Parts: sequence; C-alpha cells; structure tokens
Amino acid sequence: MKGDRTRAKQEAGQSAARVVADGSVVGLGTGSTAAEAISQLGERVDSGLDIRGIPTSHQSRRLAREADIPLTTLADAVPDIAIDGADQAAGCDLVKGGGAAHAREKIVDAAADRLLVVVDPTKLADRLDHPVPVEVLPDARVPVETAIEGLGGEPTVRSAVQKDGPVVTDNGNLVLDCAFGPLDSPGALATDLDGIPGVVAHGLFVGLADELHIGSPDGVERRQC
Amino acid sequence: MKGDRTRAKQEAGQSAARVVADGSVVGLGTGSTAAEAISQLGERVDSGLDIRGIPTSHQSRRLAREADIPLTTLADAVPDIAIDGADQAAGCDLVKGGGAAHAREKIVDAAADRLLVVVDPTKLADRLDHPVPVEVLPDARVPVETAIEGLGGEPTVRSAVQKDGPVVTDNGNLVLDCAFGPLDSPGALATDLDGIPGVVAHGLFVGLADELHIGSPDGVERRQC
Repeated sequence: MKGDRTRAKQEAGQSAARVVADGSVVGLGTGSTAAEAISQLGERVDSGLDIRGIPTSHQSRRLAREADIPLTTLADAVPDIAIDGADQAAGCDLVKGGGAAHAREKIVDAAADRLLVVVDPTKLADRLDHPVPVEVLPDARVPVETAIEGLGGEPTVRSAVQKDGPVVTDNGNLVLDCAFGPLDSPGALATDLDGIPGVVAHGLFVGLADELHIGSPDGVERRQC
Repeated sequence: MKGDRTRAKQEAGQSAARVVADGSVVGLGTGSTAAEAISQLGERVDSGLDIRGIPTSHQSRRLAREADIPLTTLADAVPDIAIDGADQAAGCDLVKGGGAAHAREKIVDAAADRLLVVVDPTKLADRLDHPVPVEVLPDARVPVETAIEGLGGEPTVRSAVQKDGPVVTDNGNLVLDCAFGPLDSPGALATDLDGIPGVVAHGLFVGLADELHIGSPDGVERRQC
C-alpha cells in the first residue's frame, strides 16, 4: 500500500513537471509530492530543459540544488508556473502548511501565472476539514488563539521534534493548527483569518489553484479549476 | 510653535493616562505622544497606582522601564486598555506605522478592551491620505509591491538611517510606505491589504479606536468613537 502511495505521488509530480515549458520560471513547492515534481524537473533539465526555479522553502531549495535546477528569486523574476502539493483538497480549495512552509508557498504560488497542485487521492475530500495551520508572530500567540476560538476554531501550538518546544517557521514564527471541523465557507474563513492582527499567513488556499494533478499507481487525473 | 506642539502632546498623553484605573493592564503605544502617556503613567505609579504595562515596541518597553511601570506580556494578561498614538486620524480611523511598530501595536491595541488614541491637532484629517505603512516578509517584497500597485498604491521601501539599506522592523521584516491618495473606503482597503500573501501587517487601524484624546496647548478634546 505504501508503495502505491509513493507511486501515486511520483505520477502526479511527473505529470505536472511535464507541463513546464522551456524558458519558464517555476515556483517549486514543498512536501513529498512537490519533491517528486522537482526531481522530475531535474531530469528534464539534465536533458536540456532551460528553466529557473524559485523555491518555497529551505527543503525545496536543497532539492532543487541537488537536481541541478538553476535558481532565481521573486525579486528577479515572476514565476510563470508553480507546482505545489496540498494537505487536503476539496474541489480546488486547499489546506496547506503541514510542513510549516505555507507563508512562502502562498507568496510564490500566488505570484505565479498558473498553479498546478499535485496530490495523491488520499488528499481529496468533499469538504475541507483538515486543521488549518496558522503562522503567527510569537508575541501574538495568545490573542490570536482567542480570536480563532471566536471564529469557532480550536488552536493547538505545533510542537517540534528534534527541537524542544514549538515548531519555529523559516520566518521565525509559530504555527497554530486550528481545528474548525468541516468548512462551509473556506473563502470567508480565509478573509477572517487574514484580518486577525498577528497572523502572518494561514494554510487556506482559496481561488489560487488552476489545475489539480491527482496521481494514482495507474496514471493521473487532471482537474481544471 | 514647536513648544505648542510638544505641549499639545503632553496634554493628550496626560488626559489618556488619567483615565487608567487602578489594577489595570495597559497596552503602551509607541511614538512621541504615546511616550508622554507612558511618562504620565509612570508619575501615577510613583504615587501608588497599581498597573502592569504591555509594551508595543522596544521603545515603549524602555520608556516603561525608565518610568518604573511593572511589565507583563500578552501571554500572561489581557490588556484592559491601550493608549497609542497615530500618524493620521480621520474620524476614528487611523494610519499608524511611522515608527514601524504597527504590527505589534495592532496586536496589543486590538487585544485591549478599550483603545485610547492620543494625538495633537496636526494629525487630524477629513479623509485619510497619509501613505499606509505595510510590513512585508523580505522575500515577498516584489510580489507585494505588484499587488499594491494593483490596488492603486505607490509603494516605496522605507530606507533606514543609522543603518545601510532598508528599515528592518522589530519582527525582522521590511516596510513599504504605500501612497494611495485620499482613501474613500479605508475598511475595504484594509481587507484587501490583509489578503495579500506576504503582508504581515498594515498601518490602517479601522474600527479599533474607542476614544480620541486630541491635545492642544490649552487642553484636550475627547472624541468618542
């Protein structure tokens, strides 16, 4: 079974990597399925594809370097396309942030002309009900928790492993995993979360995806948004 | 004339400090007029007032320590009241962030049950037209600039003095001063800015103030919101 899931991620990553045109600037997502896309892009670069990548995290930067993908930055180029994973997808709305990279992922994914989302079928849901990761300025933790409770959520500070205490993001902030139950209006919740002072970014990606590549061991379903 | 303005700030700060009740937790704003309130609170503490302060910046923390105001944090207490300045006020809507402290000011001011705003008359306007300071994650500068231009604003990276290059905030981020001209709908612009990936906080404070204390050399006008 685990082999099937890995194969599904590879299929999704390969399918999205295949879409990237010569000369493109590509946003490089974070996570295990995006990593498959980066690996496939690296193989295409080996074969002569001319692209520049914009990483969304330390992790994707490292993978891109290992794959010999030339890198650039958002200050130097606008991404034509981004390929990123998701923790959950309902229709084309996403929850992201399991890897705590969702602030920079959203910056890169939103800057890109097109966002391709690569997932395996275990990530699909009829309604989003995955806890929403919310990155907060450390000093704002308690008032943000209070505000999230006011919106009907149950926030939990994400604890680190291999480090005492909480997870600290690449931006130096904390992550609250906020359980809201099934979401009737992800867009409205996204706007509410954006308006809480001290929130740097949240993991609801609404209206950003252009295409889902849903991998399975047998192939890929492409869903337009 | 300069003496008159200093006197006006002192009057405003004193008026707001006088409102603080014994036993309160007080948010301590940043800037020259808020500094007058902190100084006045210090004098009241000398005379026996029992309060705890929550600073909004390194600057207000230092002033509070100099004034012997006991300090606490947002993780330990909810502010009953906050006293803060503004760069511009139209009605009860504010532009803040001249001191680049607006992210933490907004966190503390919004957490407080009541926000008293202390200003001198030079800060009053019929409509807000002061450039809006927007704190951004450093890597997101260019896409945020593009998004702000899309909203009709002209962003300028704030340059530092006594440091080469840009101002870096207490949170490690950059500040874009964004000229929008006169604002017809500050609330709508605030929501738009909140929704831009990479924006940590902006200086529009809409619906947060409870009372303005407008100082002049001859006294103070209190305006309820």
